[in-house]
Amino acid sequence: MNQSALARSWVEHANGHGDFPLQNLPLGIFSRKDQAPRCGVAIGDAILDLEAVLAAGLFDGQARAAVEATRGGALNAFFALGRSARVALRERLLELLGEHSEYQAALKPLLYPASECQLHLPARIGDYTDFYVGIEHAKNVGKLFRPDNPLLPNYKHVPIGYHGRASTIRPSGTDVRRPKGQTLPAGQSEPSFGPCARLDYELELGIWIGQGNDMGDSIPVAEAAEHIAGFCLLNDWSARDIQAWEYQPLGPFLSKSFISTISPWVVTAEALEPFRCAQPARPEGDPQPLPYLLDKRDQANGAFDIELEVLLLTERMREQKLPAHRLTLSNTLSMYWTVAQMVAHHSVNGCQLQPGDLFGSGTLSGAQPGQFGSLLEITQGGKEPVELASGEVRKFLEDGDEIILRARCKRDGVASIGFGECRGKILAAH
Amino acid sequence: MNQSALARSWVEHANGHGDFPLQNLPLGIFSRKDQAPRCGVAIGDAILDLEAVLAAGLFDGQARAAVEATRGGALNAFFALGRSARVALRERLLELLGEHSEYQAALKPLLYPASECQLHLPARIGDYTDFYVGIEHAKNVGKLFRPDNPLLPNYKHVPIGYHGRASTIRPSGTDVRRPKGQTLPAGQSEPSFGPCARLDYELELGIWIGQGNDMGDSIPVAEAAEHIAGFCLLNDWSARDIQAWEYQPLGPFLSKSFISTISPWVVTAEALEPFRCAQPARPEGDPQPLPYLLDKRDQANGAFDIELEVLLLTERMREQKLPAHRLTLSNTLSMYWTVAQMVAHHSVNGCQLQPGDLFGSGTLSGAQPGQFGSLLEITQGGKEPVELASGEVRKFLEDGDEIILRARCKRDGVASIGFGECRGKILAAH
Repeated sequence: MNQSALARSWVEHANGHGDFPLQNLPLGIFSRKDQAPRCGVAIGDAILDLEAVLAAGLFDGQARAAVEATRGGALNAFFALGRSARVALRERLLELLGEHSEYQAALKPLLYPASECQLHLPARIGDYTDFYVGIEHAKNVGKLFRPDNPLLPNYKHVPIGYHGRASTIRPSGTDVRRPKGQTLPAGQSEPSFGPCARLDYELELGIWIGQGNDMGDSIPVAEAAEHIAGFCLLNDWSARDIQAWEYQPLGPFLSKSFISTISPWVVTAEALEPFRCAQPARPEGDPQPLPYLLDKRDQANGAFDIELEVLLLTERMREQKLPAHRLTLSNTLSMYWTVAQMVAHHSVNGCQLQPGDLFGSGTLSGAQPGQFGSLLEITQGGKEPVELASGEVRKFLEDGDEIILRARCKRDGVASIGFGECRGKILAAH
Repeated sequence: MNQSALARSWVEHANGHGDFPLQNLPLGIFSRKDQAPRCGVAIGDAILDLEAVLAAGLFDGQARAAVEATRGGALNAFFALGRSARVALRERLLELLGEHSEYQAALKPLLYPASECQLHLPARIGDYTDFYVGIEHAKNVGKLFRPDNPLLPNYKHVPIGYHGRASTIRPSGTDVRRPKGQTLPAGQSEPSFGPCARLDYELELGIWIGQGNDMGDSIPVAEAAEHIAGFCLLNDWSARDIQAWEYQPLGPFLSKSFISTISPWVVTAEALEPFRCAQPARPEGDPQPLPYLLDKRDQANGAFDIELEVLLLTERMREQKLPAHRLTLSNTLSMYWTVAQMVAHHSVNGCQLQPGDLFGSGTLSGAQPGQFGSLLEITQGGKEPVELASGEVRKFLEDGDEIILRARCKRDGVASIGFGECRGKILAAH
C-alpha cells in the first residue's frame, strides 16, 4: 500500500469518520433521484460518482478497466477482474481523494451527500451460502437442545454450511414483513398456521466472492483469499418457531427465506488488511484440519479482528427519543474457520463459485452474556426477556422494532474503519 | 385446446414419436455450429428454429410477443409472460406444424435434425429449491436410519424442501466429475478426504417457475398452477458418504452441489394437461393439509400421471453392446404434495419466486422393489448389490457409468408424450 495508515483526505468530513475515512474506500451501487444506479465510493458522509469520474477522464489503465466493469448497476464484472484491478482502483482513489490531490476542483461536483442517495444491492447475487462458523453460537444453540453435547461430531472438521435463498437478499433500510408459516405450538401434536411469534435477528459477516472457478475445479486454500472481493454485514432474520417445526431433516427453509438484509458497501480485502490477524489458536485437543483446509499463511494472517454490534430501537424508544439499546457486542475472532477455509471447502467438491456469490459466516456470538448474536441465545429461547430503558421487555422482535448492525475495525496507529449500517424494521404480517 | 388429441403433423417422424409428437411441443434453447443459442421447439427428431420462424413473419399477436421474449438465449422473459402467451404460441405451433398446415414449404428449411444441435439450459436459474415430496423415498430412506419411525412428524404437514445450488445445474449430456470430500469411514472417529465412494443418482421431476411474486406476497394454492411454466427431468446426483458426514444440522451441501443434471426441453403444463389426475387419496388417518395448502380443484386435478424410468449403462455394457439396465420404473403419482402445494408453501412466508427458478420434486420412488429412485434404496445402503447382464455388480456408481432418466405419459385415446433424455456419465475424480 502506498498510503500512510493515517493519511488524510481533502474531503474534510472523511477524516476521523467512524465508517468511511480515506483508508476504507468501499464500493457500492447508488442512485440519485431518477438516475440509473451506478458505482460509487463512500468517503465520509459523501459518495463519489465513479462513472462521472471516469467520464471526466481521471482513470487510466487497470483502474479505468475496473470502473468500466462496474457499468450496468452491478459489481459482478468488477468482482470477476480480481485483486489487481481492485488494487489499481484503490491506489488511484487514494491519489484522487488524498489531501494533496490536484483534482479537488474537478471532483467536488461529483461528490454527493450520502443522505440524498439511495443504496442498492452491490451485485446480482447468483448463489448465497450461509455457513455456521461462529463456534460460540453453535455451542449456545447446541446447549439449548443438547446440554451435555452442544457441538456435533463434525463441527471441528467441517466448515458447516448450507444453501440460502438469493432472491430475497435486500440492502439495508428495506422493511421486514413478519412472515407467516406453520408452527407446532408447545404441547400440541398438530401444527398451526399464522404470523411468526418468535422473530429473531442473526449477526453475520457477509463475504463477496470475486473470481470464480469452473465446475469440477477446486480453489486451494492457499489461493482462496484471491477469490474474495470484499465484505459486508448480514442480518439473517430468522423465524424461530417456523424453523423448529420445518428444519428436520433438510435444514432451515422458510424460516430464513423471507428476507436477509446486507449492508450495501463492499469493504475490500485491502481496506481490511491492517485488521488481519492470526487464526485464534485451536483449544488443546481440537483436531487438526484436513490438509485441504490448512495453509500456514492463512493460519498466520487469515482471521479478522472486526468488532460487531447489534442495536435495537423500538417504536416507543423512537417516540421517547431514547438511544438504541445494544443487544450484542461481538467480534469476528469467534469464527472457527477463516474465510479462505470457507472458500476452499465450498469448492473442494468441484462446486462452481461465481463473481457476486455471497457467503454468510453464520451467527457470530461471543462466549459471554452481552456477546450473543441472536435473541434465541440472549433470552435462552424466550425464557429470559431483555429489559429496555423504555420500560418494555423483549423475548423476540415485535412489529415496529428496528435492528441495526454495525462493525468497526480499530488498531493503534491505523485509522479506524467501519462497514456502515445494516438496518431493518419489522412490519406487521399481511 | 383446438387440436385433436390424436392430430398428426406433416413432420412425418413426429407422428408416433416416443417423446415429441405434435401434442408435446416443448421449448428449449439450442444452437447449431457457431450460432448463438436461440429458442426452438422439438418436433419428432427435429428442432424448429423459432427465431427464424419469427423472422419469416409467421407469428402474430401474443404468439409473436412470446417468441420475441425468448430472444437472448434464455426463456426467463417468456416464462414471465405467463400462461396466455404460452397458450397462444402453442396454438400457433399446432397450426404451423399440423398436417393441414399451409406453411410446410416455408418451415422445412427452418427445421434441423436434433442430432446436429446442441441443447443448453433453457433459462438462467435464479434460485433452485429441492423438495422432498416423494413419500416412498422418504420412507425408504427413513427406514435405513429409523426402522420403527421412518417418517418424521412434520412430513405429512409440511412440503419439506431446502435450497439447492443453482450454479452447477447443467443440461443432459454434461459429464459428471466424481467429487472429492470429507467422509467418516465406518468404525473411524476421524474423517478422511478423498474421492466419493458412494456416488448415487436421484430421480426427480423438475418444475420451472413462470410468473413470480413480489417479496412479502404469497401465491395462493388456487392460483399456483398459473405460476408454473413447465417441467423437466432432474438427476440430483448425490455423494452419500459425504452427505452422511456433513448434513447435520443444516442439511445436504457439498454432497449435492457438484452437479445436478436436467433434461433440456421444457414440457409445458398444456402438453401435460391430458395426464393430470386427482391427487392420490391420503391414507386413512393422515392429517388434512392446512387451509393454505388446500384447494378443491388442485385436489381433483393437480397430480400428474407420468411414468419415470432410470437406465444404467456401464463402460463394459457399451463395449459388449448390451442394452442399458433398467434400475427404476416409477411414477409421479408417488408425490405426496402437488406442484401447486409446493408453490403455495414456498411463497407463504413472502419468499419471492422469480421466472426461471427451478424446483426439484425430491426423489420419486415407488413402494416396491424395482420402483426405487436411487441406489441408496435399491442396494439398501450398499448391502445388496445390483447384478448386471455384463457380469458386473453395482453398489454405487463407478467411473464410466452413465445414468439415463426418461419419462413417458400414456393415456388411452391420447398421443403419448415424453420428456427426452436426462443423461450423464461419471468421470474419474481429478
